[in-house]
Amino acid sequence: MPQLRKDPILGRWVIISTERAKRPKDFPHIESKPAQEDCPFCRGRETETPPEIFSIKDHNGNWRVRVVPSKTPFLNPNAELWKKGKGPYDLINAVGSHEIVIETPEHITNIADLGEDYVKDVLEAYCVRFKELGKDNRIKYVLAFKNYGWDAGGGRIGHARSQLIATPVNLKRVKEELEGAKSYYNRHERCIFCDIIRQELSEGSRIVLDEDGVVALVPFAPRFPFEVWVLPKEHSPDFYTVCERNIGGMARVFKKALLKIKVLLNDPPYNYVVHTAPFRRPYPGYWSTIEEDYHWHIEITPRLTRVAGFEWGSGFYICPTLPEETAKFLAETKV
Amino acid sequence: MPQLRKDPILGRWVIISTERAKRPKDFPHIESKPAQEDCPFCRGRETETPPEIFSIKDHNGNWRVRVVPSKTPFLNPNAELWKKGKGPYDLINAVGSHEIVIETPEHITNIADLGEDYVKDVLEAYCVRFKELGKDNRIKYVLAFKNYGWDAGGGRIGHARSQLIATPVNLKRVKEELEGAKSYYNRHERCIFCDIIRQELSEGSRIVLDEDGVVALVPFAPRFPFEVWVLPKEHSPDFYTVCERNIGGMARVFKKALLKIKVLLNDPPYNYVVHTAPFRRPYPGYWSTIEEDYHWHIEITPRLTRVAGFEWGSGFYICPTLPEETAKFLAETKV
Repeated sequence: MPQLRKDPILGRWVIISTERAKRPKDFPHIESKPAQEDCPFCRGRETETPPEIFSIKDHNGNWRVRVVPSKTPFLNPNAELWKKGKGPYDLINAVGSHEIVIETPEHITNIADLGEDYVKDVLEAYCVRFKELGKDNRIKYVLAFKNYGWDAGGGRIGHARSQLIATPVNLKRVKEELEGAKSYYNRHERCIFCDIIRQELSEGSRIVLDEDGVVALVPFAPRFPFEVWVLPKEHSPDFYTVCERNIGGMARVFKKALLKIKVLLNDPPYNYVVHTAPFRRPYPGYWSTIEEDYHWHIEITPRLTRVAGFEWGSGFYICPTLPEETAKFLAETKV
Repeated sequence: MPQLRKDPILGRWVIISTERAKRPKDFPHIESKPAQEDCPFCRGRETETPPEIFSIKDHNGNWRVRVVPSKTPFLNPNAELWKKGKGPYDLINAVGSHEIVIETPEHITNIADLGEDYVKDVLEAYCVRFKELGKDNRIKYVLAFKNYGWDAGGGRIGHARSQLIATPVNLKRVKEELEGAKSYYNRHERCIFCDIIRQELSEGSRIVLDEDGVVALVPFAPRFPFEVWVLPKEHSPDFYTVCERNIGGMARVFKKALLKIKVLLNDPPYNYVVHTAPFRRPYPGYWSTIEEDYHWHIEITPRLTRVAGFEWGSGFYICPTLPEETAKFLAETKV
């Protein structure tokens, strides 16, 4: 019998459609690896990207992870910030920045195939850029995400990379998550994510990994089959604090979760998004409880189904797998 | 220079990325027509679907449009409604219904290719089912939508059809839209959709069609390239009132808008969703202003880009076309 489950943070309902329940092998294989074309992200072709913003080097001075501006940026760091209205509409100049994090000098496609130390360097590069971008008072939020594979918007060049977009506005989805967490905190004086971690560890049925102070789990009301969230057990609203806290544990569990998805599901396309608190400068009042109520984490969403059309318009998701089953499959996958 | 635009109803920001601006021919052709397999929706194969719920017949007694239950329903009309909590989680039994509207007895794939009278019959079938489903006190909302083409979740059988899902809960996206409209009404005592229609008709640059009391336009802050909204000029919160008001005008403009998209963009996959007010029984207080503040309409979203990965996680959209340009292309397309 299908079931409706409510995401406790956002309040979005999801149909868990067990009538159409699927096992890992039932998903059609979606091609995720484009042909290797002339790749501007490989070692030795550094002049083909815009000038480097930041890099992490090995002891020989060769880069391991490299951050460059996007060649076709969505947002421009040199623009002047203006805002205006027109009738019922609001408009802002697209000030901000759009950067590419090149995750390895080798032509490797999936970050899941990189060593743990590279994954650690990628997280560290994010941290450094978050802190730097946060110094600009016009920037409200930095979104770190990856599109892997053609069907996840990963583009034609198969070289492991992710993106950082710094925006002059708060993003709707982020705001909703913050407000959901705040409203739970106002009622209970506890962080909802900490409560979820406790609940999940005590139930156990949706846990994929529980190692080194980091938990990977299938959420109670996932939007997508085999969706996985990776959360640090230690409470912190800000992603960039992982650098000083537990970057090794996070890198290890994050990489393992990605590799389990790759192995179990035949290297599917996926997205991941780092969920973190916004910079607090402009709204100290409104986000006064954010230190206690929000908890950063990473959400990984494999793109296994194309049956996702009307969800855009309705905010109503249909997930063809039982979360407890997918968690079991993932937990049992050896990596 | 890219621009950030805010959807005035939902408050969601969209980057209009003119740096990557695209013209209609720049979009790769995405296959939307699956091969004709044994089609259970064609005339003469009525026994292959579950028993008919409703149909509209011609004067010879042959069906023109037919509504049947889904063979693999997401929601079940015969289930008992229960709700329960478990730790921080909420759960509901999946009571409701899931129906298929077969839009023609011929094996025609795209509703855009049907005659205006068939499109009118499809809208009328929706109306009849809305009214009937609304009699069930457990049902809060009916979602009418279409997935056309493989990449829009349209499945393998290329026979024109759409879906009706009746749910025991209010959908998140619907609620947000209602709340956005209510908050605008509370401030201005005017319907935001009526204001948008007035603004658009006076600016003119985003209008695709303005005929028979119905407007088709590209929204100010679209999520997708060539997104089109179809709105009746006459204010009404409830879609099903179109039956008594202006079903002919709506069918004509809706069909023309779909055909323009087909002709201009080489028959792309698309979704459409009917946006209408929920049944008001359970919340007369909360939705007390809904008669004045909400305005039903249809949103059509072609699926031209796969670059839509991280939007799921961020609620932040990047649209690679300028709305004023796409409106011009669509307005100039002869159908």
